[in-house]
Amino acid sequence: MITLTTDFGLNDPYVAQMKGVIYTLNPNSKIIDITHGVDKFNICMGAFMLASVAPYFPVGTVHVAIVDPGVGTERRAIVVQTNQAFFVGPDNGILMLAAQQQDIKHVYELSNPKFRLPKVSHTFHGRDIFAPVAAHIDSGISVAEFGSEITQQPLLTPKFASIQNINGTLTGQILYVDSFGNAVTNIPSELIQSQTVNVSLPQVVLKLALRETYAQTNSKEAVALVGSHGFLELALNQDSFAKKYPVRTGDPVTVTFA
Amino acid sequence: MITLTTDFGLNDPYVAQMKGVIYTLNPNSKIIDITHGVDKFNICMGAFMLASVAPYFPVGTVHVAIVDPGVGTERRAIVVQTNQAFFVGPDNGILMLAAQQQDIKHVYELSNPKFRLPKVSHTFHGRDIFAPVAAHIDSGISVAEFGSEITQQPLLTPKFASIQNINGTLTGQILYVDSFGNAVTNIPSELIQSQTVNVSLPQVVLKLALRETYAQTNSKEAVALVGSHGFLELALNQDSFAKKYPVRTGDPVTVTFA
Amino acid sequence: MITLTTDFGLNDPYVAQMKGVIYTLNPNSKIIDITHGVDKFNICMGAFMLASVAPYFPVGTVHVAIVDPGVGTERRAIVVQTNQAFFVGPDNGILMLAAQQQDIKHVYELSNPKFRLPKVSHTFHGRDIFAPVAAHIDSGISVAEFGSEITQQPLLTPKFASIQNINGTLTGQILYVDSFGNAVTNIPSELIQSQTVNVSLPQVVLKLALRETYAQTNSKEAVALVGSHGFLELALNQDSFAKKYPVRTGDPVTVTFA
Repeated sequence: MITLTTDFGLNDPYVAQMKGVIYTLNPNSKIIDITHGVDKFNICMGAFMLASVAPYFPVGTVHVAIVDPGVGTERRAIVVQTNQAFFVGPDNGILMLAAQQQDIKHVYELSNPKFRLPKVSHTFHGRDIFAPVAAHIDSGISVAEFGSEITQQPLLTPKFASIQNINGTLTGQILYVDSFGNAVTNIPSELIQSQTVNVSLPQVVLKLALRETYAQTNSKEAVALVGSHGFLELALNQDSFAKKYPVRTGDPVTVTFA
Repeated sequence: MITLTTDFGLNDPYVAQMKGVIYTLNPNSKIIDITHGVDKFNICMGAFMLASVAPYFPVGTVHVAIVDPGVGTERRAIVVQTNQAFFVGPDNGILMLAAQQQDIKHVYELSNPKFRLPKVSHTFHGRDIFAPVAAHIDSGISVAEFGSEITQQPLLTPKFASIQNINGTLTGQILYVDSFGNAVTNIPSELIQSQTVNVSLPQVVLKLALRETYAQTNSKEAVALVGSHGFLELALNQDSFAKKYPVRTGDPVTVTFA
Repeated sequence: MITLTTDFGLNDPYVAQMKGVIYTLNPNSKIIDITHGVDKFNICMGAFMLASVAPYFPVGTVHVAIVDPGVGTERRAIVVQTNQAFFVGPDNGILMLAAQQQDIKHVYELSNPKFRLPKVSHTFHGRDIFAPVAAHIDSGISVAEFGSEITQQPLLTPKFASIQNINGTLTGQILYVDSFGNAVTNIPSELIQSQTVNVSLPQVVLKLALRETYAQTNSKEAVALVGSHGFLELALNQDSFAKKYPVRTGDPVTVTFA
């Protein structure tokens, strides 16, 4: 099973070219789209998407993730083998949030020309390098075949703000604003200390009741809850929090408990 | 075979999390997206989508449909078994338009914790309850295993305006405006009485020729026809009716024949 | 294996209706979406998408492509059999750019009612004619069964500007602006004569360095390169060329070399 996470969108031929390459090499592959709607060039968002979804997939899944502004430059192409899965993509951090949730066994550089398309473009390694590699892993080729093992250098990881806790005032970050307009913070449920949450965003301060789900408040009223990601989430019942209040992925967020 | 109809969009991790859950429980499942572009919280539109597509799928298909503003509240989770298919989702009406086109055999509440993910969130039953249930049905588990049968209460159904016929003046509703800008009414082809149709929408009155297809008129000219749904449809040849004339899903529409 | 290329979008029930028809006739089919995001009614863009992707798919693939403003009129429905694949759709040019890249063996009109749905609508032949035909080809039915062979008339082909070369000044066309904002011309790499490219678009004149990839320039700086399609492409490193400079699919482009 092969999953794809990219910033390619669904209107261009790029995703389908990758699928054609995979099916040509391995007609029995099963390809599942995680999303192709990552914001263009946003490696952190791609890493978050992959890390949100990978834990739900079967052992042995090959996850390909490509947000690759450095394509064609010196940045390395890698495969990360964990105890549960394979992660294939550029060495720019996009793979590592998901891989680090698991037990990393080996990392290999994808340098063996035998497992690329005959002609490799400078601008689309998804089609020419990553798709063939994924098809070959899915066919049972050992990842050690793809190139030399990377053991020494620390691999790039995406940067999210760590959580500061100063006398009970938590400072974190908006990880992600979803299509419902829910703002997902990086504050885990364990740190939530009361049923009332004071939230400071760059342009707005709110005092919110902590609820279990969206509908436990009046319609169109803002609410705090532990979302399905396991983090503190800011939402509006049957409406978009992000449309009513200015908030964006990456914003700092400060939380106190009353 | 399992189909998915939701208002989750394709840019968030939610649809892929559901797919991961299904494939983990049943790697042989075949999952087909009906659409994830239902307007957020619009149960009627989700019901219409599912009812438009379900008749075309093979006998035995498991249809999962989730537009679920009441997730985590008292609203029930159900499976409806018909003579042709299984319908899995919240008991808020989204399943019933499609199910009622077929012969309903049984309805069960999805209350057996054995068929849920170990940890059920309050906000995402698609991943934690509906996806596992669909995978288990697709694996051959009897639907009677999921919980107690619902026999007494009438189940919620989506509300569409019924058609009034007063002296030949038909009043109905715009069921749906598609991405081409075609406005699909709920007036069935049998009620169309002439080759000229006078149409009153809230902000516009039109006298339209009834044609068989879009191109049987001058380019950019409004036309009435029986669309592929089998209902009276308002369209513009090679252009968008909904962009030229103000019309929205749910609008009342009055039709007379000249 | 069956691919689908349409202008239907992903929010309407149309694509899923086609998939239901195919799976009902042939439950073992594997259906891959190329894209459903072709601009409405834009046959040239659909033809370009299909031609960009078809070469990457396995021998024997059935490609269905539908951008069909003439649905329900006299325009013919056809299947083109090449040495590598089958192309199914309306005879309006959408299939021919891809088919002509291969060795065309036969073209048949799709007129045999046996291979249509029992009731054929006037407005949705994708569901009622093209999907059943694709399922039957994928099941091994000979294409000669579908109708009479077309041997005499030239088939419609999409119109792209041919490239004029007058004393080293090349005039071509913008084939496509992708979702990254990269503008793909129809000028093939072989005609590029220097490392500096003067580009004239209808509203802007640029002097661009020719690079191998996007990141070989300062951030947000315009660059020319040979893209993954094999054509001269205009791009902005980590940004959208099409957002900064006015350019649209179909625009004429003139190029000189310094």
